[in-house]
Amino acid sequence: MILSHMTNQQPALDRVFHALADPTRRAIVERLNRGPASVSEIAEPFPMALPTVVQHLRVLESSGLVRSEKVGRVRTCRLEAAPLTRAEGWIAEQRAYWEARLDRLEDYLKILQAKEKGNDEQS
Amino acid sequence: MILSHMTNQQPALDRVFHALADPTRRAIVERLNRGPASVSEIAEPFPMALPTVVQHLRVLESSGLVRSEKVGRVRTCRLEAAPLTRAEGWIAEQRAYWEARLDRLEDYLKILQAKEKGNDEQS
Repeated sequence: MILSHMTNQQPALDRVFHALADPTRRAIVERLNRGPASVSEIAEPFPMALPTVVQHLRVLESSGLVRSEKVGRVRTCRLEAAPLTRAEGWIAEQRAYWEARLDRLEDYLKILQAKEKGNDEQS
Repeated sequence: MILSHMTNQQPALDRVFHALADPTRRAIVERLNRGPASVSEIAEPFPMALPTVVQHLRVLESSGLVRSEKVGRVRTCRLEAAPLTRAEGWIAEQRAYWEARLDRLEDYLKILQAKEKGNDEQS
């Protein structure tokens, strides 16, 4: 399992989680979830300079979460679902392991309780 | 929706996503998912110096993903599920919005197709 950190998916997951580790970038993802938008539309609600927003958009693009296309003078950004699904998949896998371990602990406790009861009845 | 980046949950999400943005830290989460482990057990499979692993563990602890307890000379680390669930929840919310938007697009296409068909039949 430890070796999995050398597989090909890892750099992609690194970039997606890094992109999501910032409140402005998560808010941009939330905005683009409502539909494609131009860079100035995206920047409008944020209390920061346009170049700062553009910098955040670059991080999102390099993670694959956002694609952009320039037509004339307007650059339109849209969300790509695949990287989000990949990140969600990794977390869901961890939860599945976690829950399986809890189930095993619960089974073990039941066995202990049954033994305990057996001992009580014998004494 | 944009305002959500100022709510209290945000710093916690920042730290969890930042903690997950590194292959060694994700591998430590995978390892601890199999059960609690001492720092030296955690470090053993990694081709890096112990202080580097300890540094990664600190980042995981500051995100809340890992809790540790020192008994005698051994520090034992265990996974905390809540921060993972929180991160998964944020992504799942995005996916729900995304899928709802796809559904609306699909409905719209069906309306267009029905209109098209109506026009064809009239002509």
